[in-house]
Amino acid sequence: MLNSDFDGNPNLAISGINEIHMVEPGDITFVDHPKYYDKALNSKASVVIINKRMKCPEGKSLIFNDMPFDAYNNLVKQFVKFVPAYQKISNTAKIGADTIIQPGVFLGENVVIGDHCLIHPNVTIYDNTIIGNNVVIHAGTVIGSDAFYFKKKPEGYDKMISSGRVIIHDNVEIGALCSIDKGVSGNTIIGSGSKLDNQIHIGHDTQIGKNCLFAAQVGIAGVVTIEDNVILWGQVGVQKDLTIGKGAVVLGKSGISKSLEGGKTYFGAPVDDAREKWKELALIRKLPQIIEELRNK
Amino acid sequence: MLNSDFDGNPNLAISGINEIHMVEPGDITFVDHPKYYDKALNSKASVVIINKRMKCPEGKSLIFNDMPFDAYNNLVKQFVKFVPAYQKISNTAKIGADTIIQPGVFLGENVVIGDHCLIHPNVTIYDNTIIGNNVVIHAGTVIGSDAFYFKKKPEGYDKMISSGRVIIHDNVEIGALCSIDKGVSGNTIIGSGSKLDNQIHIGHDTQIGKNCLFAAQVGIAGVVTIEDNVILWGQVGVQKDLTIGKGAVVLGKSGISKSLEGGKTYFGAPVDDAREKWKELALIRKLPQIIEELRNK
Amino acid sequence: MLNSDFDGNPNLAISGINEIHMVEPGDITFVDHPKYYDKALNSKASVVIINKRMKCPEGKSLIFNDMPFDAYNNLVKQFVKFVPAYQKISNTAKIGADTIIQPGVFLGENVVIGDHCLIHPNVTIYDNTIIGNNVVIHAGTVIGSDAFYFKKKPEGYDKMISSGRVIIHDNVEIGALCSIDKGVSGNTIIGSGSKLDNQIHIGHDTQIGKNCLFAAQVGIAGVVTIEDNVILWGQVGVQKDLTIGKGAVVLGKSGISKSLEGGKTYFGAPVDDAREKWKELALIRKLPQIIEELRNK
Repeated sequence: MLNSDFDGNPNLAISGINEIHMVEPGDITFVDHPKYYDKALNSKASVVIINKRMKCPEGKSLIFNDMPFDAYNNLVKQFVKFVPAYQKISNTAKIGADTIIQPGVFLGENVVIGDHCLIHPNVTIYDNTIIGNNVVIHAGTVIGSDAFYFKKKPEGYDKMISSGRVIIHDNVEIGALCSIDKGVSGNTIIGSGSKLDNQIHIGHDTQIGKNCLFAAQVGIAGVVTIEDNVILWGQVGVQKDLTIGKGAVVLGKSGISKSLEGGKTYFGAPVDDAREKWKELALIRKLPQIIEELRNK
Repeated sequence: MLNSDFDGNPNLAISGINEIHMVEPGDITFVDHPKYYDKALNSKASVVIINKRMKCPEGKSLIFNDMPFDAYNNLVKQFVKFVPAYQKISNTAKIGADTIIQPGVFLGENVVIGDHCLIHPNVTIYDNTIIGNNVVIHAGTVIGSDAFYFKKKPEGYDKMISSGRVIIHDNVEIGALCSIDKGVSGNTIIGSGSKLDNQIHIGHDTQIGKNCLFAAQVGIAGVVTIEDNVILWGQVGVQKDLTIGKGAVVLGKSGISKSLEGGKTYFGAPVDDAREKWKELALIRKLPQIIEELRNK
Repeated sequence: MLNSDFDGNPNLAISGINEIHMVEPGDITFVDHPKYYDKALNSKASVVIINKRMKCPEGKSLIFNDMPFDAYNNLVKQFVKFVPAYQKISNTAKIGADTIIQPGVFLGENVVIGDHCLIHPNVTIYDNTIIGNNVVIHAGTVIGSDAFYFKKKPEGYDKMISSGRVIIHDNVEIGALCSIDKGVSGNTIIGSGSKLDNQIHIGHDTQIGKNCLFAAQVGIAGVVTIEDNVILWGQVGVQKDLTIGKGAVVLGKSGISKSLEGGKTYFGAPVDDAREKWKELALIRKLPQIIEELRNK
C-alpha cells in the first residue's frame, strides 16, 4: 500500500495508527528525524515507518520510506475518509433519551450523544464525537474540528490528517462559542463534571480531568494533561505538551509554559507561584524608592 | 413548595427572585454561609431562605431550609422553564419594522427586537432577550447563554439556574462571534450607542453604560459595572464584581482586577495608571545599568 | 450628489473610493483634520473631499464639504448596497469544482469560492468575499464582517461603511470560530499557504503574507501588514497600523505595539527581542538577592 520496503513480521495485525506521543502496542507510527529515532524504536508501537535503513529491533517491524510523514498521512487518509454531509443530522448519529437538539445543530457521522443532554442552537459536532449523559453545550460551539498540526516543508506547510476524536464525559457543561479539536491520533477528552465557560479553545489530544472549572477565553494547546479539580481563570493560556497537577488554581491572564505541581495557586506570564509573583510585583513597585535609598547610602 | 419552616408574613406577595448581589424589595433570595447572613438579613429582600434558625427581623420573612442554594434553584426552575424549540424563529418572538433577520438566525421564546435592526447569519438569541432599535449584530454571535455560575459541592459542581436576561439598548453594534450571558437573577445590559468588536465575552449581570467602545477579544466577567464612554482596547480582561468609571481608557492586553476611577488611562496586567506603568517599564529596562552603577559606587 | 462645491477636472472618471491609508490613482478619498491635509493632498487620490477652501493642486480635484466623513460615507452607501438574503446560498455565489459546502453555511452575494475547497458547517461568508483553491474553513467561522471603524461625534459613534472585502488565496486553512473583517475601502488579504488555528480575529484591511502560521486566539487589529513566513503563537495581540517582518516568530501571549523586524524571535507585552526579555525576567527574579548584596556592600 505504501510501496516501501519492510523488515519484521509480515503477518502482524495492526490495530491502530498513532502519532509518536500517543502510541500503544499494535499501533503503527512514523519517525523522520534522527533526534526521535530512539524514541520511536523504543516506543510501544508495533510498526514504525522510518526514513533510515537499519536492523529491525526484536518484536517490532519497520517500513523503510524516504518520506515517513507522507506515508503515514496517506495511510490515515485510507482509513479516515471525509464524507460530505447532505443533512444537518447524519443518519448514523445516535441521540439518547430526553436529549434536546435545538435548531441549527450539525451532527456528523457516527456522533453519539447520551441521555438528558441539551445541545443549544448552531452547535457543530464533527464526525465520530462521543458525548456522555447530562451534558449541556451552548450555542455556536464547535466540537471535533481538525488538529492544528502542520509540518513545514520547503514549499509550505503539510497538514497531518486527524484520525482521533473528541470524547466528552457525563455532567460536562460547555459554554457558547468554544472550540475543541479532535485528536491527531488519540482522543481529546473532557472529564466528567468539568465546566467550561464561553470562548474556550482546547487543542488536539489534550485530556482534561474531572470537575475542572475553566473561565471564559481560556486557551489550551495540544497534548496537554490537566488533572482533576483544576481551576483556570479567564484568558489563561496553556502551551502544548505539559501537565497541570490536581487541584492547581491559575489566576486570570496567566501564561503557562511549563508543567505545574498540583494543589497550589499560580499567576503571571510566564506563570509563577502566586505568592512569589505578588512579592515580585510589590518589589518592582518599591524599586524607585529602593534605588534612591541605595544611591544615597 | 419548598417543604420548609417559615417565619414572617405568610401573605407577602413576592415579585421577584434574585441572587443576593441584585436584590430589590419584594424579592426572595438565599444565604447559606454565616459570612453573608448579615448582608442577606439587611438586604432589600423581602424573603430570605436561610440555613440557620433565628428570629425573623422586622419587615422580612425567613424560610428555614438546610440547603438554601438548592431550595432557591428549585424555586427558579418552577418559574423559568426551558422549552425545546421546534423552529428557528419562535412564534412568540416580536420583530420590529424594517428589521432584517438573515438566514440561520435562532430567536428563542419571547425575544423582542426593535425597528431598523440587522441580525446577520447564524446568530443565536436565547429566550427572553430584549433588543432595542437600530441594533446591528454580526454573524455567529450568541446572546443570552447561561451564566457561568457554579457552586462547589463534595460530589462536583452544582449549577445556579439563570433566571435573568440580556437587554440591549438602541444603536448598539455587536461584532461577530461575541457571547453575552444572561443575568443569574438580574439583567445583563448593554447601554445605548455602545460598540463591540468581534469575539468579545460579557458575563452574567454585567452592566455596560452608553457609548462604550470595546475592541476585539475583550473578556468581561460577571457582575461588572462599566460606566459611560469607557474604551477597552483589544484582549483586555476584566474580573468579576468591580466598577470601571466613566471615560476610563484601558490599553490592549491589560488585566483589570480592581475598580478603576474614571477619566484616566490604564495599562498592564495587573493594571495600573498607564503613565506609572510606562515609568516602571522604563526603569526595568535601565535596571542592568543602574545595578552596575550601584555596584561600582 | 454630495451637494458640495468642486474645483478641478469635472470629467475625471473615478475608479475607486478609498480611505486615506489605502488610496490609489483614480480614487476618491476624504480628509477632515488639518493634521492630515498634506497627506491627503499629496496622496495618489484623484479627488479629495475636504472641509477647507483651498487652491486645487495640479492633477487633483477637490470637493469642499463641511463634513467630509459623512459625505464620503454617503457616497459609499450609494455604491455598496446591503441586500437582505432570502436563502443560505445566494444565487450570485460561484462555487468551484470538487468544493464541498457543508450544511448551515451562508454564502452572500457575489461570493467566489475556488476548486477543491471544504467549508465546514455553520460558516458565514459575507457578500463579495473571494476564496481561492484548496482552502479549508472550519465550523462557525465568519469571513467578511464589517470593519470596526467608528468616528466619535458629540452625540455618539458614527460608523464608517465598509466597502472593501476579504480575499483568501490558495491553500489557506482557517480554524473554527475565526473572524476576518472586510476592508473599509481596500481588502483584507490572507496570503497563500497560511494556516490559522481556532478563534483568531483579523481586522479590516490587514494583509497577511504567504505561509504564515497563527496559533489559537491570536488577535490582529486593522491595517496591519504581516510579511511571509511569520509565526504567531497562542493569544498574541497585534495593534493596528504596523508591520511584522518576514520570518519573525512571536511567542505566546505577547502584545505587539510597534513594527517588528523580520527574522527574529520576540516575547512579552509590550513585546521585545525574546533573549532581551528573558534576561530581563531572570534579572527581576534575582533582584531581592541583588538588593540585599547592595545594601550590605
